Amino acid sequence: MTTSTNDMRELGAQVRNWGRWGDDDERGTTNLITPERVAAAAGLIRTGEVFELGIPLDADGPQPGGTRINPIRLMSENGQEQVLPGGFKWADDYVFMPLQAGSQYDSLSHVHYDGQLYNGHPGDGVTIKGADKCGIHTQAKGIAGRGVLLDIAAHRGVDWLDAGEAIDPDELDAVAQAQGVDVGPGDILLFRTGWRAKFLAEHDPQSFMAGEPGLSLRSAGWLRDRDVAVVGSDNWAVEVLPGENPGAVFELHMVLIRDMGVTLAEMLDFEELAAACADDGRYDFFFAGPPLKFTRGVGSPINPLAIR
Amino acid sequence: MTTSTNDMRELGAQVRNWGRWGDDDERGTTNLITPERVAAAAGLIRTGEVFELGIPLDADGPQPGGTRINPIRLMSENGQEQVLPGGFKWADDYVFMPLQAGSQYDSLSHVHYDGQLYNGHPGDGVTIKGADKCGIHTQAKGIAGRGVLLDIAAHRGVDWLDAGEAIDPDELDAVAQAQGVDVGPGDILLFRTGWRAKFLAEHDPQSFMAGEPGLSLRSAGWLRDRDVAVVGSDNWAVEVLPGENPGAVFELHMVLIRDMGVTLAEMLDFEELAAACADDGRYDFFFAGPPLKFTRGVGSPINPLAIR
Amino acid sequence: MTTSTNDMRELGAQVRNWGRWGDDDERGTTNLITPERVAAAAGLIRTGEVFELGIPLDADGPQPGGTRINPIRLMSENGQEQVLPGGFKWADDYVFMPLQAGSQYDSLSHVHYDGQLYNGHPGDGVTIKGADKCGIHTQAKGIAGRGVLLDIAAHRGVDWLDAGEAIDPDELDAVAQAQGVDVGPGDILLFRTGWRAKFLAEHDPQSFMAGEPGLSLRSAGWLRDRDVAVVGSDNWAVEVLPGENPGAVFELHMVLIRDMGVTLAEMLDFEELAAACADDGRYDFFFAGPPLKFTRGVGSPINPLAIR
Amino acid sequence: MTTSTNDMRELGAQVRNWGRWGDDDERGTTNLITPERVAAAAGLIRTGEVFELGIPLDADGPQPGGTRINPIRLMSENGQEQVLPGGFKWADDYVFMPLQAGSQYDSLSHVHYDGQLYNGHPGDGVTIKGADKCGIHTQAKGIAGRGVLLDIAAHRGVDWLDAGEAIDPDELDAVAQAQGVDVGPGDILLFRTGWRAKFLAEHDPQSFMAGEPGLSLRSAGWLRDRDVAVVGSDNWAVEVLPGENPGAVFELHMVLIRDMGVTLAEMLDFEELAAACADDGRYDFFFAGPPLKFTRGVGSPINPLAIR
Repeated sequence: MTTSTNDMRELGAQVRNWGRWGDDDERGTTNLITPERVAAAAGLIRTGEVFELGIPLDADGPQPGGTRINPIRLMSENGQEQVLPGGFKWADDYVFMPLQAGSQYDSLSHVHYDGQLYNGHPGDGVTIKGADKCGIHTQAKGIAGRGVLLDIAAHRGVDWLDAGEAIDPDELDAVAQAQGVDVGPGDILLFRTGWRAKFLAEHDPQSFMAGEPGLSLRSAGWLRDRDVAVVGSDNWAVEVLPGENPGAVFELHMVLIRDMGVTLAEMLDFEELAAACADDGRYDFFFAGPPLKFTRGVGSPINPLAIR
Repeated sequence: MTTSTNDMRELGAQVRNWGRWGDDDERGTTNLITPERVAAAAGLIRTGEVFELGIPLDADGPQPGGTRINPIRLMSENGQEQVLPGGFKWADDYVFMPLQAGSQYDSLSHVHYDGQLYNGHPGDGVTIKGADKCGIHTQAKGIAGRGVLLDIAAHRGVDWLDAGEAIDPDELDAVAQAQGVDVGPGDILLFRTGWRAKFLAEHDPQSFMAGEPGLSLRSAGWLRDRDVAVVGSDNWAVEVLPGENPGAVFELHMVLIRDMGVTLAEMLDFEELAAACADDGRYDFFFAGPPLKFTRGVGSPINPLAIR
Repeated sequence: MTTSTNDMRELGAQVRNWGRWGDDDERGTTNLITPERVAAAAGLIRTGEVFELGIPLDADGPQPGGTRINPIRLMSENGQEQVLPGGFKWADDYVFMPLQAGSQYDSLSHVHYDGQLYNGHPGDGVTIKGADKCGIHTQAKGIAGRGVLLDIAAHRGVDWLDAGEAIDPDELDAVAQAQGVDVGPGDILLFRTGWRAKFLAEHDPQSFMAGEPGLSLRSAGWLRDRDVAVVGSDNWAVEVLPGENPGAVFELHMVLIRDMGVTLAEMLDFEELAAACADDGRYDFFFAGPPLKFTRGVGSPINPLAIR
Repeated sequence: MTTSTNDMRELGAQVRNWGRWGDDDERGTTNLITPERVAAAAGLIRTGEVFELGIPLDADGPQPGGTRINPIRLMSENGQEQVLPGGFKWADDYVFMPLQAGSQYDSLSHVHYDGQLYNGHPGDGVTIKGADKCGIHTQAKGIAGRGVLLDIAAHRGVDWLDAGEAIDPDELDAVAQAQGVDVGPGDILLFRTGWRAKFLAEHDPQSFMAGEPGLSLRSAGWLRDRDVAVVGSDNWAVEVLPGENPGAVFELHMVLIRDMGVTLAEMLDFEELAAACADDGRYDFFFAGPPLKFTRGVGSPINPLAIR
């Protein structure tokens, strides 16, 4: 779908997947990860090398505070005060955290506009109790299948793209071609902007969150044409920020999540994986990234594995 | 290692893996999940069917309160009060939970005795800040490989074993033989007692936690002989409770975690997986169960996938 | 206002204080605690003895889990890992708790019906962000003034009243007369049912929460006649439970909070205070019970002082 | 006790109150708030005007994140999803917060050095479970009595003192004399540096926490001479920061809390109170600031009342 529109609602109507998997569907494009595709993706495991894509969950994470904080993990037991039969000593910990603090999925209930979620589910079904429809628990049987990495930063020859730099369909094509990889139905598409590398270099949450390089609005058509199942990134919102249209915010979120039904994976770390892919020129792999089963949850922290 | 001892410290000395992967090792038997074994395990993915093994994370979980509680997830945003450019509405949630509340890994820092953790790391390294050694983050690149399910309850022909019923090496052998599956080095061994089925039938946290069927102390030798990498169960502590020796508690925890260096996976749900295995008689599969990367964390909630 | 109606909405209309302190008022009957009355109440401090009315905030509290839990306080620092100049060692702690877990105020935003809060403020102003009107922070300058204790259990000669036993206006009059104390405008009225004594004797959260003795619906008229400012109790909901009318719940909450604008103080401990009052026959005192200033909060934990 | 020493340990030995109220004492100088003094302080209530000294507990507080965060209050119920008999709608909220996030008491277990707390209680009694001795719950029956405000900023004629500016005994004397107020045994001494006014003007947590004006080390002798019971301030640590001795941190904390046994009250707001005091020239009042009863807690959030 080559689209030239930059009007979010017009674009949303073009790429919309509502009704495609039934009127009751809550899962969207992860429906494209069929058993056949999972089985085929298993063939991408060759050396058995495992790369983890989650960032550490601790006080040194990318949250500057305010709406979201870094996880606060506190010990409830460490053995210190325990006197138990046989000398048993045990330790436990608690965490308080936003489900959106680090590497995480945006469920299809994370974003809505004009009163409707993905598939027309009512927006006011996201209540104080969580998501009546499209909660993250509906993705529990996933997300595993073929992963593809597009290393935009490497292709540009930079450590990282700058905030506000948009990635267009043409560039996605060019990178895929240069890497010798294709992107197809049911794929988990990961693209690397270097934004994680920037955070690792600078450790500056304010700067990490102030904006970011990312997909342009028109990329939605490219993703829809290829029937990508999941989009993952090393920035925090997939899309370019500030966005392309003044007078609006997070437009690609709205189109991808609400219209197309695409689960997003954000704040991933592709540094080791990208190096390995560059090393042998193979940019696809088996991706296994199960969400935690938070009933009615809007998101989930994750630590996906890429297995080559 | 056929062992007849029921003395925990003697048994621990027999099965101990300290130094086997170097004096600095913090990962224990997950070292046995080599790339070769991961690659071989990929061959177990045939139909592409995915089974999730995590239980729901919500207020209806198995924690009766006290030391551990069920997760408390609260919404911080649901769009209700938002007036944003372009009509963007978003939702977020926070969670407060023990890392040991539902389906979860016990890291090797979860248990110690006689002043030492696995591999001789000092027990007082588990401080108010968490685990100086053997934190769950050290398992981040895993845990994926060959999974094997032994359905003890089905083999006995019961809905579930009762609390206090021990599973001995002889029974593990008998079930494996009856199922036509072998257990070998680097395997993630899952055994089903029906304890999850009991909870699903009764929804009684008090009863679920009051005791449980599980592995006998002598099973440690059987697991060590086969060089199992991870042990997972549908009960909450892997081992039979009350334990076999009066005057001691959680002895198999101590032997498996501290002496053998085995990461445990607890409170899993094997109901759908077991039915599928029974259906076609195939009890091994690809297991993908990454922990969240809680730096210095003692455990992690998980939702492992079994892919057949 | 002698009222014989048991119809909640009819009763609410009779005792309603809306508009009495202006259309914008968010404080209700605490407006009755005028500076003059505070100054007069200071004269009740004679011996300088201080009694604290808050219950301990810890894991042994009265919450059985579910909707509300007991406070979970976890240490973030205890000095253990610190190496600081000059030998400084410090300790800090975090708490996760419902603001309604123990001794606490119900703000006027805690309860509504028929779409309206106290003073006609819209019910949908209590959003996911908290109370737009009548938050607990609006009571920050209080609550201090004349306190009066009516010891119902002592007057009946029982350790505690049983769940479901209602306290009627006649009994309030009889107890006040027997104690030789009057109840008047701006008073903080505390009444003792023995329900705290029961918990201290039994330590059974389930039983504590299963019901309770408390004020009858008709007591609202008695409280309105006397222009009581605050009502406090040693049970968890002030009113008798199960309530008097089948087909309704927490009717006195609705009438007192929403119609009369009375801030409630619940789960207090009057044991020591009651003994002292009985000892010298003086049942009034200076009450100082500031809420914490949670902006837009629905309630606040408290530890009020009674000073004699 | 005029002392010229700036050596913390020497000074600590001079002002130490250990054993003064028995070897088991855990309350320190709040023992000085005798019933007689409470009764006498009641005479300071004349007009009945109430001033609250707590700062708001919300996301806009003075914590920049890191070790401590501002309180995170989340709604668990707001009536939205409820369909209850009789139309009852209720709202509840949870909070996650450091007990040291805003206006708060430092208990005597908050600080120790050389292995000992106040009164020689062992420092390692502050464990992962909290304070074995000197927990904030031991102050539950207080803190109420005579309060005195010394307005240092007003006396200097500045909006606020700058970070690093020390307040010496001479200045305390001068301000007291200029204000016509004396400071004596059992008093709750509050001193105003303008640091809260600075925060209200700038809303800059980083700047608020980067340092502060406050008491000099030698002030300890002055406080000890007068047998002050509690010291409260509008900065976040009572003492001047950076401190006077390079190579040490928080020395006055150590001397006041650990040696003298003084409970500190921090991050208070004296703005309205100071204006009222200046207006009629009366700088003493009745202070009622009960801590919450966190069992074994190291601190407590507070909202003390000053009643004139």
